[in-house]
Amino acid sequence: MKVLILGGDGYLGWPTAMKLSSDGHNILVVDNYSRRKIASDRNLPTLISVPNLQQRVVTWKAKTGREILVRIGDVQEYEFILDLFHEYGPDAVIHFAEQPSAPYSMAGYLEARYTLTNNLLTTLNVSHAVKQTNPEVHIVKLGTMGEYGTPNIDIEEGYLDIEHNGRKDRFLYPRKGGSLYHTTKIQDTDLLYFYSGVWGLRVTDLMQGPVYGMFTKEMEYQPSLATNFSYDEIFGTVLNRFVVQAAIGRPLAVYGSGTQKRGFLNIVDTLECIAIALRNPPRPGEMSILNQFTEVFSILDLAHLVKQSGDDLKLNVEIVNIPNPRVEKEDHYYNPRTTRFRELGLEPHLLDQEVLSEMLEHVLRYKDNVVPEIVSPKTSWN
Amino acid sequence: MKVLILGGDGYLGWPTAMKLSSDGHNILVVDNYSRRKIASDRNLPTLISVPNLQQRVVTWKAKTGREILVRIGDVQEYEFILDLFHEYGPDAVIHFAEQPSAPYSMAGYLEARYTLTNNLLTTLNVSHAVKQTNPEVHIVKLGTMGEYGTPNIDIEEGYLDIEHNGRKDRFLYPRKGGSLYHTTKIQDTDLLYFYSGVWGLRVTDLMQGPVYGMFTKEMEYQPSLATNFSYDEIFGTVLNRFVVQAAIGRPLAVYGSGTQKRGFLNIVDTLECIAIALRNPPRPGEMSILNQFTEVFSILDLAHLVKQSGDDLKLNVEIVNIPNPRVEKEDHYYNPRTTRFRELGLEPHLLDQEVLSEMLEHVLRYKDNVVPEIVSPKTSWN
Repeated sequence: MKVLILGGDGYLGWPTAMKLSSDGHNILVVDNYSRRKIASDRNLPTLISVPNLQQRVVTWKAKTGREILVRIGDVQEYEFILDLFHEYGPDAVIHFAEQPSAPYSMAGYLEARYTLTNNLLTTLNVSHAVKQTNPEVHIVKLGTMGEYGTPNIDIEEGYLDIEHNGRKDRFLYPRKGGSLYHTTKIQDTDLLYFYSGVWGLRVTDLMQGPVYGMFTKEMEYQPSLATNFSYDEIFGTVLNRFVVQAAIGRPLAVYGSGTQKRGFLNIVDTLECIAIALRNPPRPGEMSILNQFTEVFSILDLAHLVKQSGDDLKLNVEIVNIPNPRVEKEDHYYNPRTTRFRELGLEPHLLDQEVLSEMLEHVLRYKDNVVPEIVSPKTSWN
Repeated sequence: MKVLILGGDGYLGWPTAMKLSSDGHNILVVDNYSRRKIASDRNLPTLISVPNLQQRVVTWKAKTGREILVRIGDVQEYEFILDLFHEYGPDAVIHFAEQPSAPYSMAGYLEARYTLTNNLLTTLNVSHAVKQTNPEVHIVKLGTMGEYGTPNIDIEEGYLDIEHNGRKDRFLYPRKGGSLYHTTKIQDTDLLYFYSGVWGLRVTDLMQGPVYGMFTKEMEYQPSLATNFSYDEIFGTVLNRFVVQAAIGRPLAVYGSGTQKRGFLNIVDTLECIAIALRNPPRPGEMSILNQFTEVFSILDLAHLVKQSGDDLKLNVEIVNIPNPRVEKEDHYYNPRTTRFRELGLEPHLLDQEVLSEMLEHVLRYKDNVVPEIVSPKTSWN
């Protein structure tokens, strides 16, 4: 299968490219290095510097004999993406080309505008390019579990059957984002729901929870094939930040009470979910929505798991509760469903002490690289 | 009250400005003449040419002694709108500054991009400018009944209480747009719902049905105070187009079976609704959503009403069903609630033969101005 991966330089984009290349697909990755620019402008280094895409694909070819094509450019520019669709003729497109940080989207006006414009125009452009070149192309879009927020009822997979005053209909599950970033993902869903219906496009929208981890099988060929691992308040996900705090002897900073619950998954399961989604395209006109996480934890649960793992390594980890920089419910019901990926064959890699020890030991090897100041939250929702 | 009206040159914007000025408010209208440019580029003249805003406010002052301030500029530009908020210090802002045409938004890529970018950035900018200058400012935003689509259950006002698996919560009523334009209005709602909640803004979101009519009390001072009256497939609403078709002796072109139902209202009721909304600002952090229409008709109902009115004037009106250029349900349940505006004092002006005769007689006086070709639909949803 010919697969176009937009945002192929990212934390998930590059590991996805290698995984799908290993699986025998032909891959073209696209990126505009936007995340690198933001991180560079704000001095938010990753744990280890990673080579750029052009260098990575050379290493990949040397190690595996497999070719991954690269194009550097901005998916917000329609001519660029339309030309790519014409030239490459993909069977599927995986759309990761979005500004992925909630705190970044709340930092100020320019960051909000960039997040809104980038995330919606890339999705608009993908929809139009598919319609214009080949409506059969399967669009796989990365959404987020955060689109649902934390409602007081069970979270279903994408849709909800509602009975009201004795009549029934099926709707997109009502959404409520916790940041502007999350709101743009809701708006992406609105856009794809509309275009898939009116133009008969095949769309899979993945409601993914926060991802943790840094190892995938394909990285074992060579250290320079590693994905970028962020631990800063902007791009670092919560478990990854806790592991770094434990490694450098800082307390694990829990936002508020830490009783907020989310659905998490290991990066290796993300890749497996993407591969499963590719093997199961929806019918034309259908938007398939899958909840992509494996386990629910509270933030405090995660902190205690990391502490246990750190203590086993004699790190003497502390946990502190700091004022929550976000506006979010801390005590809430949370019961999200995730059955479709299991039915389609996902075998989850759960979070256990082995996974945590491996992460912690890896970070310990590079702990001198860590800039401690960038882990603490500076971006407030107000 | 100091009221900023964005999109003050439009079909509804200008009559709203005069009405609120008459009511004793201080008014500043803003427009970038975007609708005039689109209409001019595509040769879509209005029934009567209307003077520009600068000329209209001179006439208004001469006739009433009241001043309406004008600023020409683009609400997509944040510096422009932020400066306006700083300088003028409004108590309320009425946001009409959106690309309002469903067919335009479906005409092609550039039209879709413009609609998406304009409608979302203007709403983003208003939210940020209010937050940055005075979070107490009441934001009154024009949405559309089309955000709800045509669900198989009753349409409530903005929100829906959902019981699911024995638990309950209140959500934004699930929405499903029938065009990209409608989808951008849903996305506006998402954006305002988020920012009102997180920043404690006061937002009123008006779910308005298609408006008809061309007369408001304030226009009686002088003919050149008229609003623009469009009858083309892009900017003309359905009843206005039927009246023009009847006047020029063309058949009333009903899209598909014409059994599509919508909630309609007279332009005078639109103005009254805006005035009521201004008098009833929500609490900080609350997004008040009101359904703004007075009567439900099918498209075929409207055609028959216009035919009756035309026949009374010996016009011998025909009705034809033409292939529906839109992708929409034609046979559907439709039961939208509209109780809040009545509770707040709205006394509807219903559609009767007197209203239709007055419209028809007015159009007949200017029927030589009509360009018949622009009434027929050319924009298909596919």
